[in-house]
Amino acid sequence: MDKDAGRVENLKPNYKLWLEQDGQYVFGLGAYNILKSIHNTGTITEGAKTLGMSYRYAWGVIRKIELTLNVKLLETYKGGNVGGGGARVTEHGLKLMDMFDGARTAVDKVFRKGP
Amino acid sequence: MDKDAGRVENLKPNYKLWLEQDGQYVFGLGAYNILKSIHNTGTITEGAKTLGMSYRYAWGVIRKIELTLNVKLLETYKGGNVGGGGARVTEHGLKLMDMFDGARTAVDKVFRKGP
Repeated sequence: MDKDAGRVENLKPNYKLWLEQDGQYVFGLGAYNILKSIHNTGTITEGAKTLGMSYRYAWGVIRKIELTLNVKLLETYKGGNVGGGGARVTEHGLKLMDMFDGARTAVDKVFRKGP
Repeated sequence: MDKDAGRVENLKPNYKLWLEQDGQYVFGLGAYNILKSIHNTGTITEGAKTLGMSYRYAWGVIRKIELTLNVKLLETYKGGNVGGGGARVTEHGLKLMDMFDGARTAVDKVFRKGP
């Protein structure tokens, strides 16, 4: 049974990371990607579309976190005479993104350090 | 909406960690705890009982990993004249435990470093 035992050493660590409050999941990769996509595209519609999500789903994910934390993560504004408008990630939203990405980068660094 | 905004900063990172092979989950906290408990108690029965699991469940978790990796993680042996016998974690099993625990300790260290 041991001829393939090298496989044990070939296993690689992987992980899932999230931010929590009092032991409850609040903010993970899904929400991070939604905020980032809205930040990049400037609208909830385009941000959701880029990720293959509906506006309703993407906004629901963010809205739930806003209610949990009691802070706004997105600000929407009306457009000019071409019917534009869009969404901005707030300072709180950017802070959450930074916290998540900082933790993720730190963990990735640990795992890349291996032989 | 911003009076509780300090909550964003109060969020704490948490994570789930596992070892994988070709992108497939192989070994996580559950299996680690089972091997550790068997290692400590010296039998599958007692090891499972300590964790509130049935022998069948605990052994099933480990057996599945053995089949995936094609290595033995446990060796069982017959007892003496008092009807003993027991189980030992093999070198491969100990190696898996070390890999998991090493990765976990490294990640914990990253998160403890924060302010």
